[in-house]
Amino acid sequence: MHGLSLKAKLDGVAAGKEIFALAASLYPICRSVAGEGVRETLRLLGRHIPLAIREVPSGTRVFDWSVPLEWEIRDAFIKNSAGERIVDFQSSNLHVVNYSTPVHARMRLADLKEHVFTLPCQPDLVPYRTSYYAESWGFCMSHNQLMALPEGIYEVMIDSGFKKGSMSYGELLHKGETEEEILLSAHICHPSLANDNCSGLALLTYLASQLAHTKTRFSYRFLFAPGTIGAITWLAQNERNVSRIKNGLVVSCVGDGGGPTYKRSRGGNALIDRAMTHVLRHASSSPNIIDFFPYGYDERQYCSPGFDLPVGLFQRSQFATFPEYHTSADNLDFIKPDHFASSYSMITSALDIVENDVTMRNRFPKGEPQLGRRGLYSLIGGSTEGPAKSMALLWVLNLSDGKHSLLDIAERANMPFGIISDAARLLQSEDLLERVEGAAAPPPLSKGRRTVVRPRTVSIGDYH
Amino acid sequence: MHGLSLKAKLDGVAAGKEIFALAASLYPICRSVAGEGVRETLRLLGRHIPLAIREVPSGTRVFDWSVPLEWEIRDAFIKNSAGERIVDFQSSNLHVVNYSTPVHARMRLADLKEHVFTLPCQPDLVPYRTSYYAESWGFCMSHNQLMALPEGIYEVMIDSGFKKGSMSYGELLHKGETEEEILLSAHICHPSLANDNCSGLALLTYLASQLAHTKTRFSYRFLFAPGTIGAITWLAQNERNVSRIKNGLVVSCVGDGGGPTYKRSRGGNALIDRAMTHVLRHASSSPNIIDFFPYGYDERQYCSPGFDLPVGLFQRSQFATFPEYHTSADNLDFIKPDHFASSYSMITSALDIVENDVTMRNRFPKGEPQLGRRGLYSLIGGSTEGPAKSMALLWVLNLSDGKHSLLDIAERANMPFGIISDAARLLQSEDLLERVEGAAAPPPLSKGRRTVVRPRTVSIGDYH
Amino acid sequence: MHGLSLKAKLDGVAAGKEIFALAASLYPICRSVAGEGVRETLRLLGRHIPLAIREVPSGTRVFDWSVPLEWEIRDAFIKNSAGERIVDFQSSNLHVVNYSTPVHARMRLADLKEHVFTLPCQPDLVPYRTSYYAESWGFCMSHNQLMALPEGIYEVMIDSGFKKGSMSYGELLHKGETEEEILLSAHICHPSLANDNCSGLALLTYLASQLAHTKTRFSYRFLFAPGTIGAITWLAQNERNVSRIKNGLVVSCVGDGGGPTYKRSRGGNALIDRAMTHVLRHASSSPNIIDFFPYGYDERQYCSPGFDLPVGLFQRSQFATFPEYHTSADNLDFIKPDHFASSYSMITSALDIVENDVTMRNRFPKGEPQLGRRGLYSLIGGSTEGPAKSMALLWVLNLSDGKHSLLDIAERANMPFGIISDAARLLQSEDLLERVEGAAAPPPLSKGRRTVVRPRTVSIGDYH
Repeated sequence: MHGLSLKAKLDGVAAGKEIFALAASLYPICRSVAGEGVRETLRLLGRHIPLAIREVPSGTRVFDWSVPLEWEIRDAFIKNSAGERIVDFQSSNLHVVNYSTPVHARMRLADLKEHVFTLPCQPDLVPYRTSYYAESWGFCMSHNQLMALPEGIYEVMIDSGFKKGSMSYGELLHKGETEEEILLSAHICHPSLANDNCSGLALLTYLASQLAHTKTRFSYRFLFAPGTIGAITWLAQNERNVSRIKNGLVVSCVGDGGGPTYKRSRGGNALIDRAMTHVLRHASSSPNIIDFFPYGYDERQYCSPGFDLPVGLFQRSQFATFPEYHTSADNLDFIKPDHFASSYSMITSALDIVENDVTMRNRFPKGEPQLGRRGLYSLIGGSTEGPAKSMALLWVLNLSDGKHSLLDIAERANMPFGIISDAARLLQSEDLLERVEGAAAPPPLSKGRRTVVRPRTVSIGDYH
Repeated sequence: MHGLSLKAKLDGVAAGKEIFALAASLYPICRSVAGEGVRETLRLLGRHIPLAIREVPSGTRVFDWSVPLEWEIRDAFIKNSAGERIVDFQSSNLHVVNYSTPVHARMRLADLKEHVFTLPCQPDLVPYRTSYYAESWGFCMSHNQLMALPEGIYEVMIDSGFKKGSMSYGELLHKGETEEEILLSAHICHPSLANDNCSGLALLTYLASQLAHTKTRFSYRFLFAPGTIGAITWLAQNERNVSRIKNGLVVSCVGDGGGPTYKRSRGGNALIDRAMTHVLRHASSSPNIIDFFPYGYDERQYCSPGFDLPVGLFQRSQFATFPEYHTSADNLDFIKPDHFASSYSMITSALDIVENDVTMRNRFPKGEPQLGRRGLYSLIGGSTEGPAKSMALLWVLNLSDGKHSLLDIAERANMPFGIISDAARLLQSEDLLERVEGAAAPPPLSKGRRTVVRPRTVSIGDYH
Repeated sequence: MHGLSLKAKLDGVAAGKEIFALAASLYPICRSVAGEGVRETLRLLGRHIPLAIREVPSGTRVFDWSVPLEWEIRDAFIKNSAGERIVDFQSSNLHVVNYSTPVHARMRLADLKEHVFTLPCQPDLVPYRTSYYAESWGFCMSHNQLMALPEGIYEVMIDSGFKKGSMSYGELLHKGETEEEILLSAHICHPSLANDNCSGLALLTYLASQLAHTKTRFSYRFLFAPGTIGAITWLAQNERNVSRIKNGLVVSCVGDGGGPTYKRSRGGNALIDRAMTHVLRHASSSPNIIDFFPYGYDERQYCSPGFDLPVGLFQRSQFATFPEYHTSADNLDFIKPDHFASSYSMITSALDIVENDVTMRNRFPKGEPQLGRRGLYSLIGGSTEGPAKSMALLWVLNLSDGKHSLLDIAERANMPFGIISDAARLLQSEDLLERVEGAAAPPPLSKGRRTVVRPRTVSIGDYH
């Protein structure tokens, strides 16, 4: 059985709950571009899957970049004149601008304000900010809190530091029948943001755990790396093997109920693009399917012109379009097990297509073969899906001329891939269809799925 | 003169009446997939055209199928306890499930119901049902009648039988200048259904009778054969010559006032597809032009992947979308001479395009030739169609570079093909245009159609 | 600097005023297809630019045409019974049908009416009429005036004549770096019609005067010739060199406030087509962009199949769609300096694109180069155009793979060409981008345009 089984085996409710629980366990950790937070996250994921943890020394040159120092942070606060912690890193790691330099000082409110970030249009929320490449320090707080601060002297302290160490990322290869790979990638550098991207890390970890027991046509490479520099580092270290990647997905923000959103790869017509588009159009009445643009997550790097890999981005709500994005509202209340279940279903449905999109040939191409004699009409006459299934048989027979894959057929028939591939299996089991040499066969139909029902009224049949 | 003359000669009212009368004469006959009903129908059509009647022995293997036995039926009824015929084959042959096995029995109402088909949603109508490949018997009646039947013992009798004989179909070849063929096909197996398909048989027979006196570029092959098995049989018997078919139409349901509907061939861009699309778009404000799908009439067989012939389907209302479809309401009240006239006009207009879609070359391609000097603007200045005709001259001159056929030009100009081809004739008569070698020329313009009118105001001319 | 400077140097208000003044000076002249009016117009334009005036003898054969005689007109009138001039050529040259034969006669009103043209639907306006190829005479007046004429004897006089002389046209070649040419053409045969085409003559003359001081990549050929016969004559005399024309525009009716309208070249996808479409879509919320059709101005000749030049038509209101068209209302009140300014801006913006549409190559194509380190994000962080400019940098880097020109990138990014080409200059100045051999480089960025602003919040940057 190929990847198809992923979806077939799925107990949606249970999967959603497991993914949510994993995301929740990642949420409190203070991650950054490099340092202990990433390492702790990888160890936690490693309890579920045999993840390899790679360490790349600080300062290593990777293309136009160099690997940054590790950031360490132990504590941070702002105290008022009364010595009370009015902003406290211990209550939320978003309060400190990520990658801040250390500071310990007393200052007037006006000077403090130069180092405070707020969201005036969302005055209750704390923003998420980073300062990776400018040496500076800062705090984030709600705008309401900032506005309410009285004049006075404030004590600010960030007990952080930088050290020459290494940047960490996690990698797992599930081997399939071929060395051709599907890349599944999520960024691991954000601190306490639940949807962006505890959700993506958790979903892909769960998917990897399910794949462990599954025989697949393609190999699957999972990559959990810091945004931008992590992907660039991996590309630099794997430059020779990158051509093995035949399809890929960047996964982030998959725990909310928006979208679904798919951003196409740079080329725009890779199999993963067509598969995700197909799945989203059948799963949603208003999917958000957008062309590639060179901003976003690590598809920026995978789709840089020197690589131009067929890698798209799957999300529920599109980044930067939902109000919780990059704020303290992107917390565990914002993500739900149900949304994880449907996101997981969409991703695995698309991977099923990639796994099973084979090209078949009708062995009786002159006129239609007589389906009635073989019981293929009656087989499905009693089912409410009958007419669709009969049409699927006719579509597969008509277009299986060696030039159309099953996805080609599903698209032209405007039917879900699963119905088309089920029809192909049924026809193959009757020796009406054969595999075109060089393409993988779909798995044989399990006998249990075939139930003979005596039809009362044949509404679609050999005769019209 | 080519096929163009078909339309030119048409007295629309008379044609519509003749086709209707022929359809009406076919309506009472109880046709089936094989047997005397088909033969009687072919003999009747043979009175109008020199139709060859082919007989194919029962049991002959044709691709994946075999030719069925002949069905004979003499009488059938259901009698109530009082011995009254409450359902009578003599009043409508739809009352018996077509190809029913013989039966003579007495049974309770509950058992009878197992063999009765009705239309609960159209309770006044009798459905049309067949049972070609399951050995069974049955009756059709209105749902209201069935609901009103009292409990009791009923006598059922179907005096039918099967015999080893032959399946019949009719064929006629009108020879044109070339051996390249246009296939025109209608199914002949339905009993008393007026639109589906007495209408198609009648229209094509009338068309064949008109073609008899017409010199055409292409050869025209008319085929009147039982649905599915008839087309498959013909394909099997003519496998070698099928490549001669360059365009084709399946014709059914052409006597009602719906649509017009054109279903494209499998390839979707054959000349017949473009011609029918062109004609329907100019004939109707909302034509129903649909892509190929592998269900319907015998285009299913012609467009099977082993043949993939450029054959489309022309209908008025699309099958299975009008309430009279496959019911007793598809009777002679449902079809009208006027609708036949317009269906005939659309089909012949499209065939005119196929006949006359030649490629011309402008003999004065550098700048415009001076039309005013030749009286070509003044020629049409006084006509209300003047500006359109002038534009047609300019379009033909501009696009006749050897790469655009007249239909290409008509499509780009968004003008009816007839105006473009008239313009081409006029320009050719002035030696401004010449035929591209290898393509057939349009017929010369008859002198009578050219009337010189002295223009008052030249609104489209050499100068702007 | 290339053509880009044209727009950059433009003081819109001043340009609009200069073009209007020039158009106003052309307005009173009674032009025709050949004769002193054209010559006087060319001399007037020659005061602004070094225009070569070509004279082609009457009767010269040019393709299917011959050059017409010169038309001379000194006076014309209709006098009523009282001897009063009720229609007077001296008050408007539109009153005489252009190219009228001489006449001096007395006649009854009924006979006079045979020679009078009016506009019954626009009863206050005097139409513009010509009679180039039918020997006849006529007057134009308002319909109201005609209706009010009493019965009586009228004296008509047209003091005109024809002489064997020559047809004149003006030509100017601005030499660029290459011999490849951009053709800019306007018709010069219409008498007192301000928009059609004093406006086009004036705008192109102003453009030529600005180009005189500008170094360009392409050579620019300006042509001011009588409609149809002038273009045909030029094509006949320059047949060998026509292949140098790589892009071109016919310009007419550019002084009103309608449109903007662009009619594509016959091929439809020349660079000028894409450039004008791009400019108009960014300049107007509802540009009128239409496919080629073989009627209009001299694009008819340039786009005839024997030449098929990539020449489009730019207008504000489309010809024959505005009520002032070809009437006495197309006067100096109908055209405005502001409209000239915006028309000029659109034309020069499109020419800027043609000049600067080069193909670049990203020198760091593997992953993104680190823009933050080079100050390229911060450079624009403080500007309100910052995010768009940052996106432009990313688009240029991502698509500069040697296969996409800057216009390709602007179209895919859906951003104005200027922002994309500015981004390319900036990246080139940082050695991140290099010219693809064989394509012209965009000009280097002038240092003055680069202002470093310290960013407060990096909203688009290396990290997401």
